[in-house]
Amino acid sequence: MTAEENFLQTGLQLPPAPKPLGVYKPLLIDGKHCYVSGHGTVQADGTLIIGRLGEDLDQDAAKMAARQVGLAILATLKANLGSLNKVKRVIKVLGMVNCTPDFKNHPFVINGCSELFAQVWGTENGIGVRSAVGMGSLPDNIPVEIEALFELHAAE
Amino acid sequence: MTAEENFLQTGLQLPPAPKPLGVYKPLLIDGKHCYVSGHGTVQADGTLIIGRLGEDLDQDAAKMAARQVGLAILATLKANLGSLNKVKRVIKVLGMVNCTPDFKNHPFVINGCSELFAQVWGTENGIGVRSAVGMGSLPDNIPVEIEALFELHAAE
Amino acid sequence: MTAEENFLQTGLQLPPAPKPLGVYKPLLIDGKHCYVSGHGTVQADGTLIIGRLGEDLDQDAAKMAARQVGLAILATLKANLGSLNKVKRVIKVLGMVNCTPDFKNHPFVINGCSELFAQVWGTENGIGVRSAVGMGSLPDNIPVEIEALFELHAAE
Repeated sequence: MTAEENFLQTGLQLPPAPKPLGVYKPLLIDGKHCYVSGHGTVQADGTLIIGRLGEDLDQDAAKMAARQVGLAILATLKANLGSLNKVKRVIKVLGMVNCTPDFKNHPFVINGCSELFAQVWGTENGIGVRSAVGMGSLPDNIPVEIEALFELHAAE
Repeated sequence: MTAEENFLQTGLQLPPAPKPLGVYKPLLIDGKHCYVSGHGTVQADGTLIIGRLGEDLDQDAAKMAARQVGLAILATLKANLGSLNKVKRVIKVLGMVNCTPDFKNHPFVINGCSELFAQVWGTENGIGVRSAVGMGSLPDNIPVEIEALFELHAAE
Repeated sequence: MTAEENFLQTGLQLPPAPKPLGVYKPLLIDGKHCYVSGHGTVQADGTLIIGRLGEDLDQDAAKMAARQVGLAILATLKANLGSLNKVKRVIKVLGMVNCTPDFKNHPFVINGCSELFAQVWGTENGIGVRSAVGMGSLPDNIPVEIEALFELHAAE
Protein backbone atom coordinates (compact mmCIF):
# COMPACT_ATOMS: atom_id res chain seq x y z
CA MET A 1 0.00 0.00 0.00
CA THR A 2 1.32 3.44 -0.91
CA ALA A 3 0.97 6.51 1.30
CA GLU A 4 -1.70 7.84 -1.08
CA GLU A 5 -3.64 4.58 -0.84
CA ASN A 6 -3.30 4.57 2.93
CA PHE A 7 -4.62 8.10 3.09
CA LEU A 8 -7.64 7.19 0.96
CA GLN A 9 -8.38 4.39 3.43
CA THR A 10 -8.74 6.92 6.25
CA GLY A 11 -11.76 8.45 4.53
CA LEU A 12 -10.53 11.89 5.60
CA GLN A 13 -10.57 14.98 3.42
CA LEU A 14 -7.60 17.26 2.84
CA PRO A 15 -8.17 20.97 3.49
CA PRO A 16 -6.81 23.46 0.96
CA ALA A 17 -3.03 23.84 1.37
CA PRO A 18 -2.76 26.86 3.68
CA LYS A 19 -1.28 30.10 2.34
CA PRO A 20 1.50 31.67 4.43
CA LEU A 21 0.30 34.22 7.00
CA GLY A 22 3.70 35.90 6.98
CA VAL A 23 7.10 35.99 5.34
CA TYR A 24 7.86 32.27 5.09
CA LYS A 25 7.55 29.27 2.81
CA PRO A 26 5.11 26.50 3.73
CA LEU A 27 7.71 23.88 2.73
CA LEU A 28 11.39 23.86 1.81
CA ILE A 29 13.38 21.03 0.27
CA ASP A 30 17.02 20.62 1.26
CA GLY A 31 18.46 17.59 -0.47
CA LYS A 32 16.51 14.59 0.78
CA HIS A 33 15.00 16.60 3.64
CA CYS A 34 11.68 18.38 3.51
CA TYR A 35 11.08 21.04 6.17
CA VAL A 36 7.48 22.06 6.82
CA SER A 37 6.53 25.33 8.53
CA GLY A 38 4.35 25.47 11.61
CA HIS A 39 0.84 24.61 10.42
CA GLY A 40 -2.49 25.45 12.01
CA THR A 41 -5.95 23.95 12.20
CA VAL A 42 -7.11 24.60 8.63
CA GLN A 43 -10.41 22.91 7.84
CA ALA A 44 -11.84 21.78 4.49
CA ASP A 45 -13.74 25.09 4.11
CA GLY A 46 -10.55 27.07 4.76
CA THR A 47 -11.57 28.29 8.21
CA LEU A 48 -9.56 27.55 11.36
CA ILE A 49 -10.51 25.62 14.48
CA ILE A 50 -10.13 28.31 17.13
CA GLY A 51 -9.82 28.20 20.90
CA ARG A 52 -7.57 27.48 23.84
CA LEU A 53 -7.52 24.07 25.50
CA GLY A 54 -8.81 24.41 29.06
CA GLU A 55 -10.89 27.47 28.19
CA ASP A 56 -12.67 26.77 24.92
CA LEU A 57 -11.85 23.15 24.08
CA ASP A 58 -11.32 19.93 26.01
CA GLN A 59 -8.50 17.52 25.24
CA ASP A 60 -10.58 15.33 22.94
CA ALA A 61 -11.48 18.34 20.79
CA ALA A 62 -7.84 19.42 20.86
CA LYS A 63 -6.74 15.98 19.68
CA MET A 64 -9.15 16.30 16.74
CA ALA A 65 -7.65 19.75 16.10
CA ALA A 66 -4.17 18.18 16.05
CA ARG A 67 -5.40 15.69 13.47
CA GLN A 68 -6.68 18.62 11.43
CA VAL A 69 -3.22 20.21 11.62
CA GLY A 70 -1.84 16.91 10.36
CA LEU A 71 -4.26 17.07 7.44
CA ALA A 72 -3.12 20.62 6.67
CA ILE A 73 0.49 19.39 6.63
CA LEU A 74 -0.50 16.56 4.28
CA ALA A 75 -2.20 19.14 2.04
CA THR A 76 0.99 21.22 1.91
CA LEU A 77 3.08 18.13 1.14
CA LYS A 78 0.74 17.06 -1.64
CA ALA A 79 0.45 20.56 -3.14
CA ASN A 80 4.22 21.02 -3.24
CA LEU A 81 5.51 17.50 -3.87
CA GLY A 82 2.66 16.25 -6.05
CA SER A 83 2.10 13.12 -3.99
CA LEU A 84 2.37 11.85 -0.42
CA ASN A 85 4.31 8.94 -1.92
CA LYS A 86 7.33 11.21 -2.28
CA VAL A 87 7.81 11.13 1.49
CA LYS A 88 9.92 8.26 2.78
CA ARG A 89 9.47 8.87 6.49
CA VAL A 90 8.74 11.28 9.30
CA ILE A 91 11.91 12.45 11.03
CA LYS A 92 10.67 14.97 13.57
CA VAL A 93 7.50 16.63 14.80
CA LEU A 94 7.23 19.63 17.13
CA GLY A 95 3.68 19.70 18.51
CA MET A 96 2.65 22.92 20.23
CA VAL A 97 -0.54 23.11 22.27
CA ASN A 98 -2.21 26.40 23.20
CA CYS A 99 -3.54 25.54 26.66
CA THR A 100 -4.01 26.78 30.19
CA PRO A 101 -0.96 26.31 32.45
CA ASP A 102 -2.60 23.45 34.38
CA PHE A 103 -2.84 21.17 31.33
CA LYS A 104 -0.68 18.03 31.55
CA ASN A 105 -1.63 15.77 28.66
CA HIS A 106 0.10 17.27 25.61
CA PRO A 107 1.22 13.89 24.20
CA PHE A 108 -2.42 12.75 24.06
CA VAL A 109 -3.34 15.83 22.02
CA ILE A 110 -0.46 15.65 19.55
CA ASN A 111 -1.17 11.94 18.99
CA GLY A 112 -4.05 13.22 16.86
CA CYS A 113 -1.46 14.23 14.25
CA SER A 114 1.01 11.41 14.91
CA GLU A 115 -1.63 8.68 14.55
CA LEU A 116 -2.62 10.16 11.19
CA PHE A 117 1.00 10.13 9.98
CA ALA A 118 1.34 6.53 11.19
CA GLN A 119 -1.77 5.60 9.16
CA VAL A 120 -0.34 7.24 6.04
CA TRP A 121 3.29 6.06 6.17
CA GLY A 122 3.03 3.08 8.53
CA THR A 123 4.16 2.58 12.10
CA GLU A 124 7.86 2.40 11.21
CA ASN A 125 8.19 5.25 8.69
CA GLY A 126 5.24 7.33 9.84
CA ILE A 127 6.55 7.81 13.38
CA GLY A 128 9.58 9.97 14.17
CA VAL A 129 10.94 11.81 17.16
CA ARG A 130 8.67 14.38 18.76
CA SER A 131 8.22 17.00 21.42
CA ALA A 132 4.69 17.84 22.58
CA VAL A 133 4.60 20.99 24.68
CA GLY A 134 2.41 23.80 25.98
CA MET A 135 2.67 27.31 24.58
CA GLY A 136 1.67 30.62 26.10
CA SER A 137 -0.36 31.47 22.98
CA LEU A 138 -0.60 30.65 19.28
CA PRO A 139 -1.48 32.69 16.16
CA ASP A 140 -5.20 33.42 15.78
CA ASN A 141 -5.73 31.57 19.08
CA ILE A 142 -5.62 28.19 17.33
CA PRO A 143 -5.39 25.27 19.79
CA VAL A 144 -2.51 23.44 18.06
CA GLU A 145 0.40 24.29 15.77
CA ILE A 146 2.78 21.65 14.42
CA GLU A 147 6.01 21.86 12.45
CA ALA A 148 7.70 18.83 10.94
CA LEU A 149 10.71 17.44 9.14
CA PHE A 150 10.37 14.62 6.61
CA GLU A 151 12.80 12.53 4.62
CA LEU A 152 12.03 12.21 0.92
CA HIS A 153 12.62 9.19 -1.27
CA ALA A 154 15.71 9.58 -3.43
CA ALA A 155 14.82 11.20 -6.75
CA GLU A 156 14.76 8.69 -9.58
CA MET B 1 24.07 42.38 -5.40
CA THR B 2 25.73 40.37 -2.63
CA ALA B 3 24.22 39.86 0.81
CA GLU B 4 26.75 42.31 2.24
CA GLU B 5 25.75 44.92 -0.35
CA ASN B 6 22.09 44.29 0.33
CA PHE B 7 22.65 44.75 4.03
CA LEU B 8 24.46 48.05 3.47
CA GLN B 9 21.42 49.22 1.49
CA THR B 10 19.20 48.78 4.54
CA GLY B 11 21.13 51.51 6.37
CA LEU B 12 20.86 49.42 9.55
CA GLN B 13 23.65 48.92 12.06
CA LEU B 14 24.78 45.57 13.40
CA PRO B 15 24.93 45.22 17.18
CA PRO B 16 27.97 43.51 18.70
CA ALA B 17 27.76 39.73 18.23
CA PRO B 18 26.16 38.58 21.49
CA LYS B 19 28.20 36.52 23.95
CA PRO B 20 26.60 33.29 25.19
CA LEU B 21 24.58 33.67 28.40
CA GLY B 22 25.06 29.98 29.17
CA VAL B 23 26.78 26.80 28.11
CA TYR B 24 26.24 26.92 24.34
CA LYS B 25 27.82 28.12 21.12
CA PRO B 26 26.24 31.03 19.25
CA LEU B 27 26.74 29.18 15.96
CA LEU B 28 27.74 25.69 14.85
CA ILE B 29 28.70 24.53 11.37
CA ASP B 30 27.75 21.02 10.30
CA GLY B 31 28.82 20.46 6.72
CA LYS B 32 26.90 22.95 4.61
CA HIS B 33 24.50 23.71 7.46
CA CYS B 34 24.91 26.54 9.93
CA TYR B 35 22.86 26.29 13.13
CA VAL B 36 22.34 29.51 15.10
CA SER B 37 21.36 29.55 18.79
CA GLY B 38 18.31 31.39 20.05
CA HIS B 39 19.18 35.09 19.85
CA GLY B 40 17.73 38.00 21.77
CA THR B 41 17.11 41.67 21.23
CA VAL B 42 20.71 42.93 21.40
CA GLN B 43 21.03 46.59 20.43
CA ALA B 44 24.01 48.50 19.04
CA ASP B 45 25.03 49.60 22.56
CA GLY B 46 24.93 46.02 23.79
CA THR B 47 21.77 46.45 25.90
CA LEU B 48 18.61 44.41 25.35
CA ILE B 49 15.12 45.54 24.37
CA ILE B 50 13.12 44.34 27.36
CA GLY B 51 9.41 43.77 27.94
CA ARG B 52 6.47 41.53 27.32
CA LEU B 53 4.11 42.12 24.40
CA GLY B 54 0.67 43.01 25.75
CA GLU B 55 2.11 44.39 28.99
CA ASP B 56 5.12 46.54 28.09
CA LEU B 57 5.18 46.65 24.29
CA ASP B 58 2.63 46.73 21.49
CA GLN B 59 2.94 44.60 18.37
CA ASP B 60 4.66 47.30 16.33
CA ALA B 61 7.37 47.66 18.97
CA ALA B 62 7.64 43.87 19.14
CA LYS B 63 8.09 43.70 15.37
CA MET B 64 10.95 46.18 15.65
CA ALA B 65 12.36 44.00 18.43
CA ALA B 66 12.17 40.98 16.10
CA ARG B 67 14.12 42.95 13.51
CA GLN B 68 16.70 43.68 16.20
CA VAL B 69 16.96 39.94 16.90
CA GLY B 70 17.53 39.46 13.18
CA LEU B 71 20.35 42.01 13.33
CA ALA B 72 21.88 40.14 16.27
CA ILE B 73 21.77 36.92 14.22
CA LEU B 74 23.44 38.72 11.30
CA ALA B 75 26.13 39.96 13.71
CA THR B 76 26.78 36.39 14.89
CA LEU B 77 26.92 35.13 11.30
CA LYS B 78 29.36 37.87 10.28
CA ALA B 79 31.56 37.46 13.37
CA ASN B 80 31.86 33.71 12.88
CA LEU B 81 31.76 33.31 9.09
CA GLY B 82 33.54 36.54 8.15
CA SER B 83 30.83 37.65 5.74
CA LEU B 84 27.08 37.38 5.19
CA ASN B 85 27.98 36.29 1.65
CA LYS B 86 28.92 32.86 3.01
CA VAL B 87 25.22 32.12 3.57
CA LYS B 88 23.40 30.65 0.60
CA ARG B 89 19.90 30.65 2.03
CA VAL B 90 17.65 30.58 5.06
CA ILE B 91 16.31 27.08 5.75
CA LYS B 92 14.32 27.51 8.97
CA VAL B 93 13.39 30.10 11.56
CA LEU B 94 11.74 29.51 14.94
CA GLY B 95 10.32 32.82 16.14
CA MET B 96 9.30 32.93 19.79
CA VAL B 97 7.26 35.82 21.15
CA ASN B 98 7.00 36.63 24.87
CA CYS B 99 3.41 37.84 25.06
CA THR B 100 0.22 37.72 27.06
CA PRO B 101 -2.01 34.69 26.35
CA ASP B 102 -4.55 36.79 24.43
CA PHE B 103 -2.07 37.79 21.70
CA LYS B 104 -2.89 36.42 18.24
CA ASN B 105 -0.58 38.07 15.75
CA HIS B 106 2.77 36.29 16.14
CA PRO B 107 3.45 36.11 12.37
CA PHE B 108 3.25 39.91 12.13
CA VAL B 109 5.87 40.25 14.88
CA ILE B 110 8.31 37.69 13.51
CA ASN B 111 8.05 39.27 10.05
CA GLY B 112 10.34 41.95 11.55
CA CYS B 113 13.15 39.41 11.33
CA SER B 114 11.98 37.62 8.20
CA GLU B 115 11.68 40.82 6.17
CA LEU B 116 15.25 41.70 7.13
CA PHE B 117 16.53 38.30 5.99
CA ALA B 118 14.57 38.71 2.73
CA GLN B 119 16.28 42.08 2.19
CA VAL B 120 19.72 40.56 2.77
CA TRP B 121 19.44 37.32 0.79
CA GLY B 122 16.48 38.06 -1.50
CA THR B 123 12.92 36.81 -1.52
CA GLU B 124 13.86 33.34 -2.78
CA ASN B 125 16.94 32.55 -0.65
CA GLY B 126 16.18 34.84 2.29
CA ILE B 127 12.86 33.19 3.12
CA GLY B 128 12.64 29.68 4.60
CA VAL B 129 10.14 27.70 6.62
CA ARG B 130 9.07 29.18 9.93
CA SER B 131 7.02 28.82 13.06
CA ALA B 132 5.98 31.95 14.95
CA VAL B 133 4.59 31.14 18.37
CA GLY B 134 3.86 32.53 21.84
CA MET B 135 5.99 31.57 24.82
CA GLY B 136 5.19 31.66 28.52
CA SER B 137 8.36 33.66 29.18
CA LEU B 138 11.80 34.39 27.71
CA PRO B 139 15.25 35.03 29.23
CA ASP B 140 15.66 38.49 30.76
CA ASN B 141 12.04 39.17 29.80
CA ILE B 142 13.02 39.98 26.20
CA PRO B 143 10.00 40.23 23.88
CA VAL B 144 11.38 38.01 21.09
CA GLU B 145 13.88 35.16 20.73
CA ILE B 146 14.70 33.57 17.38
CA GLU B 147 16.78 30.53 16.41
CA ALA B 148 17.65 29.72 12.82
CA LEU B 149 19.20 27.27 10.41
CA PHE B 150 21.04 28.44 7.30
CA GLU B 151 22.60 26.71 4.33
CA LEU B 152 26.13 27.83 3.46
CA HIS B 153 27.65 28.12 0.01
CA ALA B 154 29.92 25.19 -0.80
CA ALA B 155 33.48 25.95 0.30
CA GLU B 156 35.72 26.78 -2.65
CA MET C 1 39.13 9.72 27.92
CA THR C 2 36.05 8.36 26.18
CA ALA C 3 32.51 9.68 26.74
CA GLU C 4 31.73 6.54 28.74
CA GLU C 5 34.78 7.10 30.94
CA ASN C 6 33.87 10.75 31.37
CA PHE C 7 30.38 9.81 32.42
CA LEU C 8 31.68 7.34 35.00
CA GLN C 9 33.78 10.16 36.45
CA THR C 10 30.65 12.20 37.17
CA GLY C 11 29.50 9.55 39.67
CA LEU C 12 25.94 10.04 38.41
CA GLN C 13 23.47 7.23 37.76
CA LEU C 14 21.48 6.81 34.56
CA PRO C 15 17.70 6.45 34.94
CA PRO C 16 15.94 3.77 32.92
CA ALA C 17 15.59 4.87 29.28
CA PRO C 18 12.11 6.43 29.24
CA LYS C 19 9.34 4.73 27.28
CA PRO C 20 7.38 6.94 24.85
CA LEU C 21 4.25 8.56 26.35
CA GLY C 22 2.73 8.88 22.88
CA VAL C 23 3.14 8.03 19.22
CA TYR C 24 6.82 8.81 18.71
CA LYS C 25 10.28 7.26 18.81
CA PRO C 26 12.67 8.26 21.60
CA LEU C 27 15.51 8.47 19.05
CA LEU C 28 15.87 8.40 15.28
CA ILE C 29 19.04 8.00 13.25
CA ASP C 30 19.30 9.82 9.93
CA GLY C 31 22.71 9.21 8.40
CA LYS C 32 25.25 10.65 10.79
CA HIS C 33 22.57 12.58 12.68
CA CYS C 34 20.79 11.33 15.77
CA TYR C 35 17.54 13.12 16.67
CA VAL C 36 16.28 12.73 20.26
CA SER C 37 12.67 13.39 21.27
CA GLY C 38 11.74 15.81 24.01
CA HIS C 39 12.77 14.14 27.27
CA GLY C 40 11.46 14.73 30.76
CA THR C 41 12.77 14.52 34.30
CA VAL C 42 12.97 10.73 34.66
CA GLN C 43 14.71 9.66 37.86
CA ALA C 44 16.57 6.42 38.67
CA ASP C 45 13.41 4.91 40.19
CA GLY C 46 11.43 5.75 37.05
CA THR C 47 9.37 8.53 38.65
CA LEU C 48 9.38 12.11 37.36
CA ILE C 49 10.48 15.31 39.07
CA ILE C 50 7.23 17.29 39.03
CA GLY C 51 6.43 20.96 39.49
CA ARG C 52 6.49 24.41 37.96
CA LEU C 53 9.40 26.78 38.51
CA GLY C 54 8.16 29.80 40.47
CA GLU C 55 5.34 27.82 42.07
CA ASP C 56 6.76 24.49 43.19
CA LEU C 57 10.51 24.70 42.52
CA ASP C 58 13.18 27.39 42.65
CA GLN C 59 15.78 27.82 39.92
CA ASP C 60 18.39 25.71 41.66
CA ALA C 61 15.97 22.77 41.87
CA ALA C 62 15.00 23.37 38.25
CA LYS C 63 18.67 23.28 37.21
CA MET C 64 19.01 19.90 38.94
CA ALA C 65 15.86 18.82 37.09
CA ALA C 66 17.49 19.88 33.79
CA ARG C 67 20.50 17.73 34.68
CA GLN C 68 18.10 14.85 35.28
CA VAL C 69 16.62 15.41 31.82
CA GLY C 70 20.16 15.28 30.47
CA LEU C 71 20.64 11.93 32.25
CA ALA C 72 17.41 10.63 30.69
CA ILE C 73 18.72 11.65 27.25
CA LEU C 74 22.00 9.86 27.97
CA ALA C 75 20.00 6.77 28.98
CA THR C 76 18.11 6.86 25.68
CA LEU C 77 21.34 7.28 23.71
CA LYS C 78 22.99 4.38 25.53
CA ALA C 79 19.95 2.09 25.24
CA ASN C 80 19.64 2.72 21.50
CA LEU C 81 23.24 3.21 20.38
CA GLY C 82 24.90 0.80 22.83
CA SER C 83 27.44 3.38 24.05
CA LEU C 84 27.80 7.12 24.59
CA ASN C 85 31.03 6.77 22.63
CA LYS C 86 29.01 6.55 19.42
CA VAL C 87 28.18 10.26 19.72
CA LYS C 88 30.72 12.59 18.15
CA ARG C 89 29.22 15.88 19.28
CA VAL C 90 26.18 17.83 20.38
CA ILE C 91 24.72 19.88 17.53
CA LYS C 92 21.61 21.46 19.06
CA VAL C 93 19.61 21.56 22.27
CA LEU C 94 16.15 23.02 22.77
CA GLY C 95 15.64 23.56 26.51
CA MET C 96 12.06 24.22 27.59
CA VAL C 97 11.30 25.43 31.10
CA ASN C 98 7.83 25.19 32.68
CA CYS C 99 7.81 28.38 34.75
CA THR C 100 5.73 31.35 35.81
CA PRO C 101 5.73 34.26 33.32
CA ASP C 102 7.98 36.39 35.54
CA PHE C 103 10.92 33.98 35.35
CA LYS C 104 13.99 35.37 33.53
CA ASN C 105 16.85 32.94 34.03
CA HIS C 106 16.17 30.07 31.63
CA PRO C 107 19.82 29.75 30.51
CA PHE C 108 20.87 29.09 34.13
CA VAL C 109 18.34 26.26 34.38
CA ILE C 110 19.20 24.58 31.08
CA ASN C 111 22.90 24.74 31.96
CA GLY C 112 22.09 21.80 34.23
CA CYS C 113 21.83 19.67 31.11
CA SER C 114 24.46 21.46 29.05
CA GLU C 115 27.13 21.18 31.76
CA LEU C 116 26.48 17.43 31.94
CA PHE C 117 26.89 17.06 28.16
CA ALA C 118 30.12 19.12 28.36
CA GLN C 119 31.42 16.75 31.05
CA VAL C 120 30.62 13.72 28.90
CA TRP C 121 31.86 14.88 25.49
CA GLY C 122 34.16 17.76 26.45
CA THR C 123 33.81 21.50 26.10
CA GLU C 124 34.31 21.49 22.34
CA ASN C 125 32.17 18.53 21.27
CA GLY C 126 29.76 18.50 24.22
CA ILE C 127 28.50 22.03 23.61
CA GLY C 128 26.29 22.92 20.65
CA VAL C 129 23.83 25.64 19.77
CA ARG C 130 20.88 26.09 22.11
CA SER C 131 17.68 27.91 22.88
CA ALA C 132 16.49 28.06 26.49
CA VAL C 133 12.93 29.31 26.75
CA GLY C 134 9.81 29.42 28.94
CA MET C 135 6.76 27.34 28.11
CA GLY C 136 3.15 27.81 29.14
CA SER C 137 3.03 24.21 30.41
CA LEU C 138 4.72 20.84 29.98
CA PRO C 139 3.47 17.22 30.04
CA ASP C 140 2.74 15.89 33.54
CA ASN C 141 3.70 19.33 34.87
CA ILE C 142 7.42 18.48 34.68
CA PRO C 143 9.66 21.54 35.17
CA VAL C 144 11.95 20.92 32.17
CA GLU C 145 11.76 19.19 28.80
CA ILE C 146 14.71 19.03 26.40
CA GLU C 147 15.07 17.80 22.83
CA ALA C 148 18.43 17.42 21.12
CA LEU C 149 20.30 16.68 17.93
CA PHE C 150 23.64 14.86 17.98
CA GLU C 151 26.21 13.97 15.36
CA LEU C 152 27.41 10.36 15.40
CA HIS C 153 30.87 9.09 14.61
CA ALA C 154 31.11 7.62 11.14
CA ALA C 155 30.32 3.88 11.22
CA GLU C 156 33.47 1.79 10.86
